[in-house]
Amino acid sequence: MFDDLSSRAEEHSSQSTRDRIWRVIFLSDTKSGKAFDILLLWIIGMSVFVVMLESVPTIQEHHRRLFVRLEWVFTILFTIEYIIRIWVVRNKKAYIFSFFGVVDLLSLIPTYLTLIIAGPQYLLVVRVLRLLRVFRILKMARHIGEANLLINAFRASFTKITVFLFLVLAVTLILGTMMYIVEGVIANNPGFSSIPQSVYWGIVTISTVGYGDVTPITVAGKVISTIIILIGYGTIAVPTGIVTAELNMNMAKIRPDKRICRECGHQGHDTKARYCKMCGTEL
Amino acid sequence: MFDDLSSRAEEHSSQSTRDRIWRVIFLSDTKSGKAFDILLLWIIGMSVFVVMLESVPTIQEHHRRLFVRLEWVFTILFTIEYIIRIWVVRNKKAYIFSFFGVVDLLSLIPTYLTLIIAGPQYLLVVRVLRLLRVFRILKMARHIGEANLLINAFRASFTKITVFLFLVLAVTLILGTMMYIVEGVIANNPGFSSIPQSVYWGIVTISTVGYGDVTPITVAGKVISTIIILIGYGTIAVPTGIVTAELNMNMAKIRPDKRICRECGHQGHDTKARYCKMCGTEL
Amino acid sequence: MFDDLSSRAEEHSSQSTRDRIWRVIFLSDTKSGKAFDILLLWIIGMSVFVVMLESVPTIQEHHRRLFVRLEWVFTILFTIEYIIRIWVVRNKKAYIFSFFGVVDLLSLIPTYLTLIIAGPQYLLVVRVLRLLRVFRILKMARHIGEANLLINAFRASFTKITVFLFLVLAVTLILGTMMYIVEGVIANNPGFSSIPQSVYWGIVTISTVGYGDVTPITVAGKVISTIIILIGYGTIAVPTGIVTAELNMNMAKIRPDKRICRECGHQGHDTKARYCKMCGTEL
Amino acid sequence: MFDDLSSRAEEHSSQSTRDRIWRVIFLSDTKSGKAFDILLLWIIGMSVFVVMLESVPTIQEHHRRLFVRLEWVFTILFTIEYIIRIWVVRNKKAYIFSFFGVVDLLSLIPTYLTLIIAGPQYLLVVRVLRLLRVFRILKMARHIGEANLLINAFRASFTKITVFLFLVLAVTLILGTMMYIVEGVIANNPGFSSIPQSVYWGIVTISTVGYGDVTPITVAGKVISTIIILIGYGTIAVPTGIVTAELNMNMAKIRPDKRICRECGHQGHDTKARYCKMCGTEL
Repeated sequence: MFDDLSSRAEEHSSQSTRDRIWRVIFLSDTKSGKAFDILLLWIIGMSVFVVMLESVPTIQEHHRRLFVRLEWVFTILFTIEYIIRIWVVRNKKAYIFSFFGVVDLLSLIPTYLTLIIAGPQYLLVVRVLRLLRVFRILKMARHIGEANLLINAFRASFTKITVFLFLVLAVTLILGTMMYIVEGVIANNPGFSSIPQSVYWGIVTISTVGYGDVTPITVAGKVISTIIILIGYGTIAVPTGIVTAELNMNMAKIRPDKRICRECGHQGHDTKARYCKMCGTEL
Repeated sequence: MFDDLSSRAEEHSSQSTRDRIWRVIFLSDTKSGKAFDILLLWIIGMSVFVVMLESVPTIQEHHRRLFVRLEWVFTILFTIEYIIRIWVVRNKKAYIFSFFGVVDLLSLIPTYLTLIIAGPQYLLVVRVLRLLRVFRILKMARHIGEANLLINAFRASFTKITVFLFLVLAVTLILGTMMYIVEGVIANNPGFSSIPQSVYWGIVTISTVGYGDVTPITVAGKVISTIIILIGYGTIAVPTGIVTAELNMNMAKIRPDKRICRECGHQGHDTKARYCKMCGTEL
Repeated sequence: MFDDLSSRAEEHSSQSTRDRIWRVIFLSDTKSGKAFDILLLWIIGMSVFVVMLESVPTIQEHHRRLFVRLEWVFTILFTIEYIIRIWVVRNKKAYIFSFFGVVDLLSLIPTYLTLIIAGPQYLLVVRVLRLLRVFRILKMARHIGEANLLINAFRASFTKITVFLFLVLAVTLILGTMMYIVEGVIANNPGFSSIPQSVYWGIVTISTVGYGDVTPITVAGKVISTIIILIGYGTIAVPTGIVTAELNMNMAKIRPDKRICRECGHQGHDTKARYCKMCGTEL
Repeated sequence: MFDDLSSRAEEHSSQSTRDRIWRVIFLSDTKSGKAFDILLLWIIGMSVFVVMLESVPTIQEHHRRLFVRLEWVFTILFTIEYIIRIWVVRNKKAYIFSFFGVVDLLSLIPTYLTLIIAGPQYLLVVRVLRLLRVFRILKMARHIGEANLLINAFRASFTKITVFLFLVLAVTLILGTMMYIVEGVIANNPGFSSIPQSVYWGIVTISTVGYGDVTPITVAGKVISTIIILIGYGTIAVPTGIVTAELNMNMAKIRPDKRICRECGHQGHDTKARYCKMCGTEL
């Protein structure tokens, strides 16, 4: 996500103005680059905060004008930034259709749309995705290793967790239908007026969220609830177990000793290894 | 579950029409077999979706006829499929009484029952179990190893989790009875009108679901609630710990290869290793 | 808990009638002993079930007489059993003051108390503790190793979890007091009418139970709620992590190879060990 | 936190009165020092309990005078203790600005403030932090190793959990805004009257707390709720996994002794091992 753009840093050794601006805006390996990124993050954070405040009725009544102005200030700033980004980057197409390119554009459109129709200003909250750039600054710091660890463990767990969620949803669907028959059809409980409604209740229950907006009123319904709760209680362990086991694997891999084989240069030996596992040379 | 039927694939090398159909319907190792399975999964998914929609009052009012027709279309399709399955399979008894044979039959009956009595069409939701065939397609892919891992860890954890749930239920029963005396008998809280009702509350609480349909109103009741919550908070760790530890074990077992060094007999080499890490002999 | 009584099994090789009865009642290593235990467990289960049903108003109204009779039947059976237990056991004092001796007595008293005063029959639910004898039968089976594993992991985790719960309670107390000031004193929210009440809310929240009987209504209260929720979300991991790590340790310990040193008879060597770690003999 | 003060214990071998008092108050390695600490903890616990009770309306009405007196007794006791602490400690500045020095002072001020203005007596609950001294007594016992383990695992997990919480908050913000548009703007659900309000709901939901004070009423709202619940269900595993993996690492590190075999240099022996398990040399 970040690398395709930043890896081109080396090519730009001859520093034209455009290249220097590119370095400041797209990278954070220089002092001014880091300062730009931190400033940008603050402005993005403030603009998201303004969108959130604007939605509060009591605040909006008294400060409507201020908010409209602030929104335009942020939008114009971000528009200028977006234009400069397109100007300085070499592969313009790659940037525009990259994840951050799309997010950058989506962060501008809603304000311009308010000129035509009312309402879409709340879509500006998509700007929070721009804050993900914070990870680019962190890249320079020690956090990147840990972020990678998380991402790797998550990716490795993904199919397992999906398989698991599918099974949980199948169980929820069947028990939800039973609840629809027992509570909705027989006892006329308004919270179980249809199967989708009962499945909503089932997911709220099996995940242990338990709003309480829909609750069983019959004895049979309470028995089925107890079963679905016990299933949820026993199975919430599964995704946790999956992620933990993956993290355990990854952490064990990352922290091994740093010996390098003198013959083949292989690194990443088992701590107990005496000989290189790639070429057989004594370590 | 899958293997008893599919392992017979090799016997059928002489390809009669019946055998070819059998291969398409029961296996997914050919292109047409896989296509059939994916088509079947889509139709099953749609038929389950129709059953769910049918239960929504506002939709049912306007489209009752459409739903009845769709249901019959799906049921007739599945009936034809069921008959073909019985025709092509060699050991008919084994299929009919297998898990999927029973589910296939149960997916048909409710619609035919609606000819005699009203109501059972919602039982058609059992069709969602037919979707479990999705794992047969996945068998061809890398998912099977991970599914096995999950199943093994779950099986190994089962008795431990059962012992644990029994202890939790015993604690819930005793504390629920105390709540019945404190809240139901003394304070006349309608939510604790009997011991089973109090136990229902106890399970909702200890599992951290917490609907809020039944809550303590007395000081003593709130103190007991706090105790049961702290027990739940401290013990939800246990099933998680069990599953995680099992997964850890299984993952550690599955990943390393089983090569043994001819020289020193060391086992537990890295999958990519070429030389024994203990004595340097080529593996 | 079990061993002090059952270890005496060997002494009783000369089989008097009393000793034979003792063997049947206290041990489950013979066919009749196991049969007696299973019969006892069923009767206990039924007696607990009767106590539960008796508390349901609609059932009690119609069958009051039946329940009173059933209760006396169970109580007289258990009284006879208790007297026989005291008669056959050699060290009577040890049995009477053991965990099960006390539970056996407590299971009888409430019924006799109903002759004098009304009400205590619900205390009979303490009989559920007698069901813990089920573990004595399981002792013969493979479950015992797993139960031990759980108990060991739990014992090892206990002080750590206690330290952790103390910290969580301290945080809950401070944030609960803040909520009392913000919601109870300033905003007059009836759910936060006192500090203990606010602490009750805090525990319900931080454990993710979330009844919803007490909820914040002010902005400041919702901000503090969010903080306490995020703390709970981040820390529920801790007891789980503790139990899992302990289980991991214990499982790794329990499953090692079964080699026994020829010299010193030490068992429990590391799988990779070549020499006995106690006496240095080659394994 | 503790060490900077207690490490100076050795210097004070010549025992003046002041030094003897210092030893009793600041350390717990002598009989009288331990007795003082336990007495202090009981008094602190009681003073916190009094502050809690004082906030209960029904209790306060009848015993207002008693509570005011008790509060002054505790405050004067703690003031004397605070003055003695400053008197006996050598590096007064270090104590006053240490964590416990600040907490000790904050535990006194609110009572004195009640002479000028009403209300701040509830701030006395900060005294619960003084209870953290309990860990100093435990230092003498085996608990310290386990506390360290917890602290290390927590510190190591901290950045990972922060990164994770940031991602969760970003997701909650975006889905919360969608809920604001769907439920608040379109369906006029009063619980989603602004974006901050919707984000509050999102955090209550994704953490599986689920108060139920704010719940979706539209179909689209329930679908988004289901998504946010499934995300929460799938991701609550992540902080648990992180803490567990860290604890696993730390426990593995702490337990094995650090002896190295003189012959083969193997490290990682069992604590009870007498001979090297790799070459049989006596350790």
